[in-house]
Amino acid sequence: MQKRKYLIIGGDMRSVYLSELLKKEYHRVEMYGFEKKYPDMKNKNLSLMISDTNVIICGIPLESAGGLVNMPFSAEALPVNALIEMISGDVFFVAGKIEKDIREQLDGKGIAYFDLLDREEMAVLNAIPAAEGAVELIIKAIPATIHNSRILILGFGRIGKVLSKILHGFGAEVWIAARKYSDLSWIEVYGYKPVHIKDLESYATDMDVIVNTIPVRMLTADILNKIRPDCYLLDLASKPGGIDFTHAEKLGFKVDWALSLPGKVAPLTAAEIIKRTIDNVFQEGSFTK
Amino acid sequence: MQKRKYLIIGGDMRSVYLSELLKKEYHRVEMYGFEKKYPDMKNKNLSLMISDTNVIICGIPLESAGGLVNMPFSAEALPVNALIEMISGDVFFVAGKIEKDIREQLDGKGIAYFDLLDREEMAVLNAIPAAEGAVELIIKAIPATIHNSRILILGFGRIGKVLSKILHGFGAEVWIAARKYSDLSWIEVYGYKPVHIKDLESYATDMDVIVNTIPVRMLTADILNKIRPDCYLLDLASKPGGIDFTHAEKLGFKVDWALSLPGKVAPLTAAEIIKRTIDNVFQEGSFTK
Amino acid sequence: MQKRKYLIIGGDMRSVYLSELLKKEYHRVEMYGFEKKYPDMKNKNLSLMISDTNVIICGIPLESAGGLVNMPFSAEALPVNALIEMISGDVFFVAGKIEKDIREQLDGKGIAYFDLLDREEMAVLNAIPAAEGAVELIIKAIPATIHNSRILILGFGRIGKVLSKILHGFGAEVWIAARKYSDLSWIEVYGYKPVHIKDLESYATDMDVIVNTIPVRMLTADILNKIRPDCYLLDLASKPGGIDFTHAEKLGFKVDWALSLPGKVAPLTAAEIIKRTIDNVFQEGSFTK
Amino acid sequence: MQKRKYLIIGGDMRSVYLSELLKKEYHRVEMYGFEKKYPDMKNKNLSLMISDTNVIICGIPLESAGGLVNMPFSAEALPVNALIEMISGDVFFVAGKIEKDIREQLDGKGIAYFDLLDREEMAVLNAIPAAEGAVELIIKAIPATIHNSRILILGFGRIGKVLSKILHGFGAEVWIAARKYSDLSWIEVYGYKPVHIKDLESYATDMDVIVNTIPVRMLTADILNKIRPDCYLLDLASKPGGIDFTHAEKLGFKVDWALSLPGKVAPLTAAEIIKRTIDNVFQEGSFTK
Repeated sequence: MQKRKYLIIGGDMRSVYLSELLKKEYHRVEMYGFEKKYPDMKNKNLSLMISDTNVIICGIPLESAGGLVNMPFSAEALPVNALIEMISGDVFFVAGKIEKDIREQLDGKGIAYFDLLDREEMAVLNAIPAAEGAVELIIKAIPATIHNSRILILGFGRIGKVLSKILHGFGAEVWIAARKYSDLSWIEVYGYKPVHIKDLESYATDMDVIVNTIPVRMLTADILNKIRPDCYLLDLASKPGGIDFTHAEKLGFKVDWALSLPGKVAPLTAAEIIKRTIDNVFQEGSFTK
Repeated sequence: MQKRKYLIIGGDMRSVYLSELLKKEYHRVEMYGFEKKYPDMKNKNLSLMISDTNVIICGIPLESAGGLVNMPFSAEALPVNALIEMISGDVFFVAGKIEKDIREQLDGKGIAYFDLLDREEMAVLNAIPAAEGAVELIIKAIPATIHNSRILILGFGRIGKVLSKILHGFGAEVWIAARKYSDLSWIEVYGYKPVHIKDLESYATDMDVIVNTIPVRMLTADILNKIRPDCYLLDLASKPGGIDFTHAEKLGFKVDWALSLPGKVAPLTAAEIIKRTIDNVFQEGSFTK
Repeated sequence: MQKRKYLIIGGDMRSVYLSELLKKEYHRVEMYGFEKKYPDMKNKNLSLMISDTNVIICGIPLESAGGLVNMPFSAEALPVNALIEMISGDVFFVAGKIEKDIREQLDGKGIAYFDLLDREEMAVLNAIPAAEGAVELIIKAIPATIHNSRILILGFGRIGKVLSKILHGFGAEVWIAARKYSDLSWIEVYGYKPVHIKDLESYATDMDVIVNTIPVRMLTADILNKIRPDCYLLDLASKPGGIDFTHAEKLGFKVDWALSLPGKVAPLTAAEIIKRTIDNVFQEGSFTK
Repeated sequence: MQKRKYLIIGGDMRSVYLSELLKKEYHRVEMYGFEKKYPDMKNKNLSLMISDTNVIICGIPLESAGGLVNMPFSAEALPVNALIEMISGDVFFVAGKIEKDIREQLDGKGIAYFDLLDREEMAVLNAIPAAEGAVELIIKAIPATIHNSRILILGFGRIGKVLSKILHGFGAEVWIAARKYSDLSWIEVYGYKPVHIKDLESYATDMDVIVNTIPVRMLTADILNKIRPDCYLLDLASKPGGIDFTHAEKLGFKVDWALSLPGKVAPLTAAEIIKRTIDNVFQEGSFTK
């Protein structure tokens, strides 16, 4: 296998694990933006580092607030467009959630890049650590076992599919709300109980746990009013989330909104997934240029 | 619920079970084309029957050879277009695999119809009896247990998904060949072993069972030459099938090509699936007219 | 590993597969009592063969009717005690279901022996082919899929445990009748529905399939009278079986009594189990002498 | 159903949930020893309460240090033998881990009693919350997902059986070490990888997680020296535990010893299990007297 020179700029624990995985395959890896957490990793001159690299990997997401490169373990403030400015021709650029203006800047400079979040296989595999993180939260939150609990999952996308499989393995009674008849058929095939989303109101009332995965307001005040007060509510959907949190708290529900679970729950596995996705892209030769 | 007058014309055992399921819900059901197997069900005047019905249900597929209505349990020869000719305005027409010329004839007469095979939920649910039929064939064919056998499934469509789930439940070592990276990721999520289809040749050699579900020639003479001679080959794909049968038999493989399993293995369940699909269509109001 | 000289005398297809497995590990294997099915395997002089062997393996069971060695693939009639008479000192003797008088004869001659059916690990592993055979019978017998069927298993011994696990993997609704509270707890742990055996009468009435594994008359005429007539009855228990077959047939039930499934359904796996059991005994040094 | 007068004396959150479950069935329930956590529950005169009760339920275990009744939510110090002294003839006495001297005192006074920990069905069902608690600890401890991790469980008793089932449902590679060949067979039946305990040393080296369930020193300093340093060690065995903790910490292992998980992880479920066990005992009429 071809050895490459990688430069990892920012990101969270996933970046740290990723560097170790790459070194295990004898690639050269340099790090920038980790000096606050790892004082040994002093930041060297970034321009020089960039000039001697094949692949730059930034975090997921690429940007933090204010258009800065996402570097939670660093005290530096590096604007994303300043970073791109420093990159020239022959480098591959990898990051998650690359905004439109940055894509245009990359295109303009003829730099090959791809967005990790555009890759379906990455999204599928990331559903595993996300689902395991949800399981941890549920065990911690409820006074009963998952075994024999009635759990309703809203949505049968990636996380819905993986989470339902694991909860079924615990012996929970798994209900899943979806809209399409073909999804409802799959739900039945897998041995879960299907609920048409239009009947959500009547089925939600008597659950031990409800997990939302749809980024649309599903549990409105109206529906929350009818739910058993000891039901645990867990939202895994990205903004704006699917629960009326203000109303849920007013009613006294135990409620959590858990975002970015893969990096928090299983950074090593999340790093492996990133590495494999990058490998696939190299193998396919499917960098956008 | 609204009571309807159903007329079932032809089809196999699924039609017989379907009539019983409809009667249990107090619909009126009449039958045409079953007199050879059920001498009690004498065929009455078809035109009269049609003139006093709301829904006509034919078999899957609608046609047998020569453009005749598929009526395996009848001695009559009724051309499909002659049947359509008899139908007038207010009747709903249901069948499987309605050919283009017949659709045009139905459209021309303004008759509301739908094709069962166009419904995704029906295809999904039918994967269950098909997979169970495949399991029966595998148990019968191999001298070992499914437990601990190495089984390679070609394709991760509906039948591939359901069959792999069941075989995994037996404790088999399940390998699945697919092409898309996202499918390979799902295969891993479910705990099976993924094989990229381009590597089929090297992985196929040492299996106890290979089940094909892709209607494309997958197991060519070249690949068959390399497969262990005691491997059982089962093809579930529709025509032209995925195995070079002539070559496989020349090499002495035990090989089966199993088509239309749902109606043969579990006609009652297959009839329930048809009934539910029809119910869904009525509920959606999604008849083509 | 030490190479041995094996002599296989009689038995069914398991014996044939066993000889191949032993040869794969470079043991010498000779066969006696297969000439009717395999004309190439002519029977040589038995005394001479015995005088040059380390281990003699007979069938399961050792005896067929009339005290003869169980040799279904042979035309010879060899009394078991005549066989034992020919054996002397240094040979290990292995068979299934060795009767008390034969054990005494072996003890008297100081021959080391063990009974395969006394080994718990063999009984456990044999439950797998037995359960798979039961699955094949169920798929064949019922007009519905196992998925979503209601299946009641009587007894939570070895076969009950393995069969329930597989049927659960199909997505059946699995009910299990047992007597001990600790068994009922385990049934619940595994996600099946527990029935106390004293309530059998009320739970048996509305099942799609009932599988008996207890060698005691469970389904009496009284209970059969209350069972839904389209319920499939399958008895896996050894004599006297657990179903009143005469009454069941009078009532028109579809009913099967399946014995000795492992050797019929999966002779290769059954032979592997025998081989591993013999290996364990040699490793333990636990031959009775 | 017969209504009873229950008196719950001490115990943890399980006692609190148990009181609610009993009230739901319209029994009268009084509480003693909860005033520190629930100031509303003032302790009344204990003798008077005892004189008007049918069933007394103490905690699991009955005693805390110094021979006192286990009452973590109370400031009172009540010796167990003083409590027994107050009880007279017609009361049923229930608790967990009743020591020999107390049993003799109960026998002497002719009081009917039983020890919850003597009931097999209670031990079986308690394995579920214990296993779920272990899962929570594992997810929290390791940087990878349980999916695809290699996990070795020492022991195939109750907790070993339930935990392996759940971890298998996550898609882990589950290895189990046991001593009996029949257990090793069951391990294989369920699709896990069997390890004979005598080979522990060679298999333990390359695991992501090792969970011990055997109350015997299994992971000695010698074995720990050979284990991969990033392996997470979790001990679920009661005293003296199965890991050389001092040595494990010296080597820098992440290691936990988790006891009494059911009451901590799922007190509601644990209370339901206690209630059902008491119901079973009443139904059987199996109080010791």
